[in-house]
Amino acid sequence: MRAEIISIGDELLIGQVINTNQAYIAEQLSGVGVAVARMTTVGDEEESILKAFEHALERHEIVIVTGGLGPTHDDITRKAVCKFFQTDLVVNEEALERVRQFFARRGLAPRKINEDQALVPRGCTVIRNLQGTAPGYLFERQGKYFIAMPGVPFEMKAMVQSFVVPFFAQRASGIVIRHRTLKTTGIGESFLAEQIGDVHKIFSPDSGIALAFLPSPLGTRLRISVRAVSLNDANEKIQSVEERIRARASKYIYGADGEELEEVVGRLLSKRKLTLSVAESCTGGLIADKITNVPGSSNYFERGVIAYSNQSKVEELAVPLVLIQDHGAVSREVAEAMAVGVRMKSSTDIGVSTTGIAGPSGGTPEKPVGLVWIGYSDAHDTLALHFNFGDDRRRVKERASQAALELVRRRLLKIDY
Amino acid sequence: MRAEIISIGDELLIGQVINTNQAYIAEQLSGVGVAVARMTTVGDEEESILKAFEHALERHEIVIVTGGLGPTHDDITRKAVCKFFQTDLVVNEEALERVRQFFARRGLAPRKINEDQALVPRGCTVIRNLQGTAPGYLFERQGKYFIAMPGVPFEMKAMVQSFVVPFFAQRASGIVIRHRTLKTTGIGESFLAEQIGDVHKIFSPDSGIALAFLPSPLGTRLRISVRAVSLNDANEKIQSVEERIRARASKYIYGADGEELEEVVGRLLSKRKLTLSVAESCTGGLIADKITNVPGSSNYFERGVIAYSNQSKVEELAVPLVLIQDHGAVSREVAEAMAVGVRMKSSTDIGVSTTGIAGPSGGTPEKPVGLVWIGYSDAHDTLALHFNFGDDRRRVKERASQAALELVRRRLLKIDY
Repeated sequence: MRAEIISIGDELLIGQVINTNQAYIAEQLSGVGVAVARMTTVGDEEESILKAFEHALERHEIVIVTGGLGPTHDDITRKAVCKFFQTDLVVNEEALERVRQFFARRGLAPRKINEDQALVPRGCTVIRNLQGTAPGYLFERQGKYFIAMPGVPFEMKAMVQSFVVPFFAQRASGIVIRHRTLKTTGIGESFLAEQIGDVHKIFSPDSGIALAFLPSPLGTRLRISVRAVSLNDANEKIQSVEERIRARASKYIYGADGEELEEVVGRLLSKRKLTLSVAESCTGGLIADKITNVPGSSNYFERGVIAYSNQSKVEELAVPLVLIQDHGAVSREVAEAMAVGVRMKSSTDIGVSTTGIAGPSGGTPEKPVGLVWIGYSDAHDTLALHFNFGDDRRRVKERASQAALELVRRRLLKIDY
Repeated sequence: MRAEIISIGDELLIGQVINTNQAYIAEQLSGVGVAVARMTTVGDEEESILKAFEHALERHEIVIVTGGLGPTHDDITRKAVCKFFQTDLVVNEEALERVRQFFARRGLAPRKINEDQALVPRGCTVIRNLQGTAPGYLFERQGKYFIAMPGVPFEMKAMVQSFVVPFFAQRASGIVIRHRTLKTTGIGESFLAEQIGDVHKIFSPDSGIALAFLPSPLGTRLRISVRAVSLNDANEKIQSVEERIRARASKYIYGADGEELEEVVGRLLSKRKLTLSVAESCTGGLIADKITNVPGSSNYFERGVIAYSNQSKVEELAVPLVLIQDHGAVSREVAEAMAVGVRMKSSTDIGVSTTGIAGPSGGTPEKPVGLVWIGYSDAHDTLALHFNFGDDRRRVKERASQAALELVRRRLLKIDY
């Protein structure tokens, strides 16, 4: 079964909002064997919406629509759905009850525009909204499926999990499509391609195996895609390709699929019962933010210091002032002293640090914007590495945070640079 | 002029990558009066790509394509462009020189696949890639414009800034479309709508003025859109609408357009020559990360402490252990003590703190997941507010960081809750 995802909203067309819904829905559908063949975005304008519905249902068996089901006047999707399926609105008692409960739990009284959310197109199957007040709708017509959901990401996600995924999992067809992504960091796309060898020859289109290189500031991902007649067959194909890639590029691969580097590092620390502390200057809290995004990180993450000023480096991390005076705050010596300092004060097993020039100003010919020193210290070793992460402030922070986590991973696994 | 944006890449269709390019391009085009009417995403598959090109050029005057121009085998857009415009590839000497320089600057030798990036479709206008090696292409046919660029966001963005924006700015037509977005936080969408009043009546479609409500975990944005015959006329319309909205909901509005709350707070601090420090528990560094995303934040942001463990709250922030024992780490008393502690140790004017239960575990009936106390302290006042931010770990962190920054803004401007 092939699907088209349609997003509705002027905010998307003027670029005010980044569309995260399409990727989420695509990933979830892909997981139950539904291939997304196309994604379309149109504005809050009835004619465009109706045309998009029509074309999508012509081309594909499944159409998933999000956006424009909210309570305010600019939400016109529901009206368009009624027109498209030539139906009108009826009150859904369960949805009305949910609206009332939703507001009662917050100690508030629903407005008329909130209660109107319980009006649904006659003849649809109502999809419950577990996180908000606007229900979703399912229409089945001539063996094709049309689903409309609100565009608020967490409301939509809850509907996808509770309804859409199980619904299509039951209806999946014979061909199995599976993807697996190996995530690398610290190596450029073309060097990684060279390391792996001639992928054209290794993976012919006839074999049902494809390999894609997906670069990003955090590293290049390698996506293996296979088509097979059974799940077993698909898994075997993926495994054999993965082994060949790992044999050639294993040191750069930190994880697979949705796994983030901070989860991998967290798991390594947990398994070895080690604790970590961080001392951040140029990354400004981003390393700690990433680490604490992982549930259970309080088991191994003890504390962090964001030592933005020189004074705070001296006071918080016991960096000798003379080191800063002699070598500058952005130097091997200071990076190492910061890592040692945070490790000692927090009594953790490992300390990691960053000091660099995130820009846009502050660079010099010797120490340009983008220069970052990353320090590491444990009971046996203290060291620092330097990198140049380019001239975009946010990207410098992102790449430096990733490199700091990667340094911890490589030290834990004894992988050299 | 109306445009369609086409993104190419299997990674988008399987939901592996969130498409940020479409929003960026749309925003930039919108700024020079080009309305994006549709966005389409297709996979790395020649037939879909050719069909998408054909339909887009039928429907709109401008077609902007991104993705699939990289060096590896899965990048097939260039071939599709050649086929579509019935042309072949030629070496572009300037692009070849850029590839060589690009690698020389990094102390590396280009591979053959890198040098092949200098091959461009015959007959196109080459768009320089200032950040990478794959050039972009422009074709003009019968008064319509077709542009292809790489999908790597920062390479594409540099091309949009250096070429696409100035190119279309010169060709813009008579009707002016302008948007302005007022950003609010701390109030739900339907309550904000009620506060503002009946927007149907205030803004009729005939007036060329539209108002949209855009909810997100960080707050609801209000987008005013106007169509007018001149820039002056557009600006006047926007100003009059903005004044009406501000008269009804000013306390919730922290900024406009692309402005982030951390920039607004940073500007207020700079102007008043005040300094800030943060003590984060449940937000885990995210507040500091946001603050330090702003260039120049080192002028007012002194340091941050991520006090994840109870011990670190006591050691780093001088929170009396007895407070934690009597009230728990997630309490008004501890939030206030953290804010005072970080302010005192860093000698800043303001200290702000968070302590809460980000989940997924750790909640109790009295202190459920999502409960967050936010503390504030300056020379005159110390206080804490509590919120419930729901049950998604990342969303709790996001919303708590926003609420902490908003608390600083409201205290600085003496706006009550």
